Amino acid sequence: MGTPWSHRFAYRTATVKSSAIRELLKLTQRKEVISFSGGLPAPDVFPTSRFKEACQRVLDEHGPQALQYSTTEGYLPLREMIANNLQRYGILATPDNVLLTNGSQQALDLIAKLLINRGDRILTEAPTYLGALQAFNVFGPDYVTVPVDDDGLRTDLLEEALRSGPKFMYILPNFQNPSGVTLSLQRREELVYLSDKYGIPIVEDDPYGQLRYEGQHLPPLVVLDRENLRRDEGYTLGNVIYLSTFSKTLAPGLRLGWIVAPREVISKLVQLKQGADLHTSTFVQMIAYEVARDGFLDEHVRLIREVYGERRNIMLQALDEFFPHEVTWTNPHGGLFLWVTLPEGCDCNEVLKAAIKENVAFVPGDCFYPGTEGNRNLRLNFSNAMPDQIREGIRRLSVALKSQMAKQKEFAEAH
Amino acid sequence: MGTPWSHRFAYRTATVKSSAIRELLKLTQRKEVISFSGGLPAPDVFPTSRFKEACQRVLDEHGPQALQYSTTEGYLPLREMIANNLQRYGILATPDNVLLTNGSQQALDLIAKLLINRGDRILTEAPTYLGALQAFNVFGPDYVTVPVDDDGLRTDLLEEALRSGPKFMYILPNFQNPSGVTLSLQRREELVYLSDKYGIPIVEDDPYGQLRYEGQHLPPLVVLDRENLRRDEGYTLGNVIYLSTFSKTLAPGLRLGWIVAPREVISKLVQLKQGADLHTSTFVQMIAYEVARDGFLDEHVRLIREVYGERRNIMLQALDEFFPHEVTWTNPHGGLFLWVTLPEGCDCNEVLKAAIKENVAFVPGDCFYPGTEGNRNLRLNFSNAMPDQIREGIRRLSVALKSQMAKQKEFAEAH
Repeated sequence: MGTPWSHRFAYRTATVKSSAIRELLKLTQRKEVISFSGGLPAPDVFPTSRFKEACQRVLDEHGPQALQYSTTEGYLPLREMIANNLQRYGILATPDNVLLTNGSQQALDLIAKLLINRGDRILTEAPTYLGALQAFNVFGPDYVTVPVDDDGLRTDLLEEALRSGPKFMYILPNFQNPSGVTLSLQRREELVYLSDKYGIPIVEDDPYGQLRYEGQHLPPLVVLDRENLRRDEGYTLGNVIYLSTFSKTLAPGLRLGWIVAPREVISKLVQLKQGADLHTSTFVQMIAYEVARDGFLDEHVRLIREVYGERRNIMLQALDEFFPHEVTWTNPHGGLFLWVTLPEGCDCNEVLKAAIKENVAFVPGDCFYPGTEGNRNLRLNFSNAMPDQIREGIRRLSVALKSQMAKQKEFAEAH
Repeated sequence: MGTPWSHRFAYRTATVKSSAIRELLKLTQRKEVISFSGGLPAPDVFPTSRFKEACQRVLDEHGPQALQYSTTEGYLPLREMIANNLQRYGILATPDNVLLTNGSQQALDLIAKLLINRGDRILTEAPTYLGALQAFNVFGPDYVTVPVDDDGLRTDLLEEALRSGPKFMYILPNFQNPSGVTLSLQRREELVYLSDKYGIPIVEDDPYGQLRYEGQHLPPLVVLDRENLRRDEGYTLGNVIYLSTFSKTLAPGLRLGWIVAPREVISKLVQLKQGADLHTSTFVQMIAYEVARDGFLDEHVRLIREVYGERRNIMLQALDEFFPHEVTWTNPHGGLFLWVTLPEGCDCNEVLKAAIKENVAFVPGDCFYPGTEGNRNLRLNFSNAMPDQIREGIRRLSVALKSQMAKQKEFAEAH
């Protein structure tokens, strides 16, 4: 008698599949599995006692305010702090250019709502962040992709892609998720030049920018942006919307990210956020402010850089030691991930099945493409596991990998 | 040279206007204004010290977990607590039927994403909750409305409206926002009968259900739902999606609401929430659980009922004392709001301008209709102001009202 609910679902739900990463996370929660799958920060460096103090101070001094409704834009002292921090990197943002979101995932949802009409073309790197594809897919875009190499987006292939008229470009210039590569300075210049030439804006997603373990900081696209540079009254028009988050520098369990954009864009995003959830938790914003203030955030980021940099090194050493020489990987200068490429004929999903039997997990590469590429790639996270676990995990993974490669070779010879 | 961003905005942004309530809130933040405008709980009853204890306990006992990423569905002990509480009201939900959201505003956004194709017809009460219209409008629906009277939705007018084929009905059965009226038991029965007859589901929004100051609790629609009753294996199919929140019982600054729905619906909503913000703050969910547990929530709701019930009485007395006899208002048995109707010819927005001069504020009635009705109505909140402020605010409002009514009379006589 009853109508199945699925008959009532809107067209857009057909494009939404459960994130492979999140399903995997469930599968690999067994204690004995060493997981390189999630993009999880190391819980052992969360500043728990600083959080405890912050909770007490916020509730003692601003209890009623912290627990009450607040404005959609976000807690003003936190927006001021974010704007000040950005100015150190040359981003001329004021608090009016900053909107607090529930992690940068919500920023992607709001931007998709703001910009994507069904059938609009979006330009992404290939591979690109899976969560962005999930956020965008709900609004029915088509994709045009440009591959990355060790210097990031192949800007030599960009102009042709831009001529197909994408609505915007979605770019992760620093220690890209999933590949770990960083866009070189020359390519940044080429990218903003082409963005300006074709009038096609950039959504610059920068969750990892502060987590650099070697080399020099490179200027964000929003700073190089020619439309922005042309103005002298600060960040008022600009071709770039910039995103970042506290998820990798303080704690992802807060769900606290932000959008930096021209006021015209912020004003419309605020209206969309009103309809989406009124505002981000007042309580969480005030606590994050108390934790981060007085230089603590910088100090904590230094600690994270040290810890994650060491873990990256350990993973790179273990890969050198254990992996077959036909397998290659990127050498990330920061962030949380590196990207493995298997020899021709290998399939990442077959390797994953073998890996899970060996009690080790990763995310198969084909998750990170709007199309059907990436089946010879693995994304490995190096921030979450402890150093000795990293080495053991890579050893186990090499066992799975070698058995799959042997099977593949056998199969190829037989046919 | 630069393209204005507005030329790039998606079609849906044209329907999104800034919430009049939120703009008003900014305008009336001056200390001397007595505001009946927001739907704000009383900050003086927030259980601040219980929150302090909860923060310490969560960070001491589960620090790394509380600050880390978690599952999209929400913190399991909290979902169990919510399911258990619902069972007291006859709602046969298990934790698998519960999805945590960033306030029930996000629930409305996710439901809109799930169900609304552009041009779909949505049935709402007239008037209805402004925030629901904001959430739905982004997805481009049309509306069909059915008026409310003192017994809630006019079910005698419902069948004709249902024949226009709405995708779903959005109903607030208890102490409706904005009118304060409650759907009678007989009409609840008629509503679920018609929902079943036409196969048109109900989204039942129940933020205030526990805040009843007189009369008997009435069964929620999700309990009366015939599709649900027909099954004996619990809440598996059902025609009703049920929403509620901690915003009115604990603290809105948490941004913590929930959706109760058949598993098929929850499973798709989880996928949509993954793309929207990954999950609701782990930290906030664990703290809410610690605060609410061991019977504290029930105890606290008893306190709120007492405080708000008194404030409602004071407002009703003041209205009797100060308001002209041509003006009428509803007599809410619970919740946060009452609804004033002015005589023919009055305009709520003119009254608001006069009221702001008298340092008192409310929300004009026309905000609460998808169409252009409601210009003779005012929504008054009675939970946020202190008792003596309520009396003084109503006195001021009566001054503004009488001056507008005199002007109107003068105008009518002159023409």
